[in-house]
Amino acid sequence: MKSSAVYERLQTRLRDVTNLRAAAAVLEWDQEVNMPPKGTDARGRQLGTLNAHAHTLFTCEETGDLISQAGEDAEHLDPDARSLVNEAAYDYDRARRIPEVFVRRFSEARSRAYQAWLEARKRSDFALFLPHLETIVRLCREEAEYLGYRENPYDALLEGYERGMTTAELRRIFSVLGTSQRELTARIGAAQESPGPDWLRQSWDVNRQWEFSLRVLRDMGYDFDAGRQDRSAHPFTTNFSIHDVRITTRLSEDDFFSALFSSIHEGGHALYEQGFREEDEGLLLAAAPSLGMHESQSRLWENLIGRSLAFWTHYLPTLRELYPGQLDRVGAEQLYRAANRVSPSLIRVEADECTYNLHIILRFELEVALIEGNLAVADVPAAWNEKMKRYLGVIVPNDALGCLQDIHWSHGSFGYFPTYALGNLYAAQLFNTMKQEVPGFDAQIERGEFRGCLDWLRSRIHRTGRRKTAIEIIHEATGTPPEPGVFLAYLESKYGSLYNLG
Amino acid sequence: MKSSAVYERLQTRLRDVTNLRAAAAVLEWDQEVNMPPKGTDARGRQLGTLNAHAHTLFTCEETGDLISQAGEDAEHLDPDARSLVNEAAYDYDRARRIPEVFVRRFSEARSRAYQAWLEARKRSDFALFLPHLETIVRLCREEAEYLGYRENPYDALLEGYERGMTTAELRRIFSVLGTSQRELTARIGAAQESPGPDWLRQSWDVNRQWEFSLRVLRDMGYDFDAGRQDRSAHPFTTNFSIHDVRITTRLSEDDFFSALFSSIHEGGHALYEQGFREEDEGLLLAAAPSLGMHESQSRLWENLIGRSLAFWTHYLPTLRELYPGQLDRVGAEQLYRAANRVSPSLIRVEADECTYNLHIILRFELEVALIEGNLAVADVPAAWNEKMKRYLGVIVPNDALGCLQDIHWSHGSFGYFPTYALGNLYAAQLFNTMKQEVPGFDAQIERGEFRGCLDWLRSRIHRTGRRKTAIEIIHEATGTPPEPGVFLAYLESKYGSLYNLG
Repeated sequence: MKSSAVYERLQTRLRDVTNLRAAAAVLEWDQEVNMPPKGTDARGRQLGTLNAHAHTLFTCEETGDLISQAGEDAEHLDPDARSLVNEAAYDYDRARRIPEVFVRRFSEARSRAYQAWLEARKRSDFALFLPHLETIVRLCREEAEYLGYRENPYDALLEGYERGMTTAELRRIFSVLGTSQRELTARIGAAQESPGPDWLRQSWDVNRQWEFSLRVLRDMGYDFDAGRQDRSAHPFTTNFSIHDVRITTRLSEDDFFSALFSSIHEGGHALYEQGFREEDEGLLLAAAPSLGMHESQSRLWENLIGRSLAFWTHYLPTLRELYPGQLDRVGAEQLYRAANRVSPSLIRVEADECTYNLHIILRFELEVALIEGNLAVADVPAAWNEKMKRYLGVIVPNDALGCLQDIHWSHGSFGYFPTYALGNLYAAQLFNTMKQEVPGFDAQIERGEFRGCLDWLRSRIHRTGRRKTAIEIIHEATGTPPEPGVFLAYLESKYGSLYNLG
Repeated sequence: MKSSAVYERLQTRLRDVTNLRAAAAVLEWDQEVNMPPKGTDARGRQLGTLNAHAHTLFTCEETGDLISQAGEDAEHLDPDARSLVNEAAYDYDRARRIPEVFVRRFSEARSRAYQAWLEARKRSDFALFLPHLETIVRLCREEAEYLGYRENPYDALLEGYERGMTTAELRRIFSVLGTSQRELTARIGAAQESPGPDWLRQSWDVNRQWEFSLRVLRDMGYDFDAGRQDRSAHPFTTNFSIHDVRITTRLSEDDFFSALFSSIHEGGHALYEQGFREEDEGLLLAAAPSLGMHESQSRLWENLIGRSLAFWTHYLPTLRELYPGQLDRVGAEQLYRAANRVSPSLIRVEADECTYNLHIILRFELEVALIEGNLAVADVPAAWNEKMKRYLGVIVPNDALGCLQDIHWSHGSFGYFPTYALGNLYAAQLFNTMKQEVPGFDAQIERGEFRGCLDWLRSRIHRTGRRKTAIEIIHEATGTPPEPGVFLAYLESKYGSLYNLG
């Protein structure tokens, strides 16, 4: 077969796999947003069939042959085609290292662990989850052996979420982050008046919150002809193509910020997915290179733009119109302060910018110890509570608010948490460079003009897709590899002036 | 292999096929209800992949072997299992008669014809559609030859929508229907004052219409924990399992009846699909035996119950509450009359009970002539217009309001239209028997109690699924095979008294 014919057949195969995966994503979106309660069982079976078909189609010998034949003729391909073949080879190789029987076993264990976790969290009873978590850890260790690694079995898992990142490198980064963020949080704690301002404790009409979130998303550049926002219990972003990228948010009448920051966060993810190249549509390259890189986009929009004084300066008049009488005596500075309150708390997803990474470091340390075999699963609650006290100064009253709060372990997603912290670091590095390269950046934000920001992200990040790793992209875009310094300097500068720290 | 093992493998295979088809149905529902406009192309490709996988999985040799092995051991199976194997064999045999290459060719021709039809209808220019319709007719004739038939090639197509029904039988039924309905319509035309009542020409709040439709659906017995209603341009019913059956409706502020009757109609379809047996879930038996039988359920609820005096008597107080002041001088009798106005019109989907079948007979006659080769496609507009004048006394001003009004031909669905008329006949026959067998039927409806009606339909129709043909089900439930007399007697009685016909 001619090399171009092989390459075309490979493209067709990859598009078919993408189509099956996209169909599964539609079914999952529907499950969270629309599905009537009795539809659950059938939906589980439908997703099972779809995922099995997609997996089989991608990992079969025929796909492997197409990839290796296309790879042999790689010198006749243009650079994009070569990238595609390389990425396909990478995914194929990783998928084929795991035996089919193990995939099924792991999948069944996850389903059971998830059900047990739901119940355990509800009753705040770690014992109910313990045997399942033991199984999950054992299977993750087994998976690491199948996947292979050089130094640490945790590296093998990490690779699935943040390619090229290592346990050793994370330890180095997190050691710097942890010390500095604990120290900063302590200084803020001493300086901050609690509780928060009285004006926040009003009722905020949810329809107005919805309207405002749509307005901000539109301003950010989110294309509603290629997406939509809905409500769901847990906000998320999903895509079925470059031209159908959907987000969800949740609305709470008591909470002025929650829906907005959810929408901006998911909007940041969505802008990334709407920004891949048209010619990559349906192929592997229309994807982020890592979860950390994906998270950098959501956090950059949510925290570095959405929690800036310029942002609130621009939107204050809009908000006063939306909530007549409710914000008459509140200025942009007060909105900015309220959006940036720092208070060490029990729950990761509610954590502020100063303390968020501390929650991640705690989880990372426990995960590594579990995978290395240096921590027994039964000892997780005690270890969790001890670290919460040490890192955040918080006493954990029960496991529901402690080590049972996250879904990730029940899903078997060991190695996932660090990407949240990396997202923060990448975001700070990107933002720092963007501010230097986009003329009049702050003034643009104050005018509600996000086009300069979006264009910069499109050209440096979005349009690259998976052609480079996150580490390469950050290095090229900012001149330095991932490192904690820029993020820490950002925190120091922002919170130093907010709290008049010496 | 042991016979039970073969049967189990067959079940698993059929469930997998069902899961892929259900996934496609979710994607189609989403396309009509939620999808942002730019998502169209990717969705088309996703559906293409899903449908191809489902088709291949069902029509492959392995499935055929499972069916024939299970069939050879049929005497060891219980009756339900035998039914399943028989139905699988029937579908498999029919699907395998069509060559793969023809399936693809037809599918591509349909896509092109649909696009051409959209444009032709928009511009009211039949010439744009002509070459595509010629291709479709040629392919339908080719398909009929692949499928095989005894008397008439149209029989082969009809079989796909109304199993066991023949062109000859339809000619006999439609000849009686056509004569009687034309004559009744003429008598009503002479007796009816036009235009309709003044009170109808008010603005009807769409949120109240929505609320009312939900109320009626709930009263009918539609389970909202196993379904939902949404808005779409064209109302439809779809299901992804017995426990997830969704309907759509459309809302128009000017139209008091449109949303309601759409909801009741689709609700009738949905009650059927929520009423299949739990043990048939995911297998071929959880389906209607024909489109005519499915349509009988929607029409029975919409026309024979929803357009009855008892129905309006029950809901008048509710409606007066929903529309304060708007119905003060309107009684149940006037609502009933307004819901049953007769007026021959150009558009099938807007036709009343008296004239609807005349639209169908016209299409049936043209379809048969086209498939038999007795009518040239180029002569369709003239033949259409001539029949509209003769059957309905209506002058067709242009093809958009004439032979271009329906989507069906662009989809290649020759043989589909007659099932709408059969639905009317079946509904009248079922209703007639049900009224005799359910004690105090009219009084139940007047109290808004539909349980007796639903239970009767569940036991006589819904729970049978595909175990019998529509013709067998009607015969057993009513004592007579499908025939036009009961429907005509119903029309004569209802409209005779509404219009004081002699």
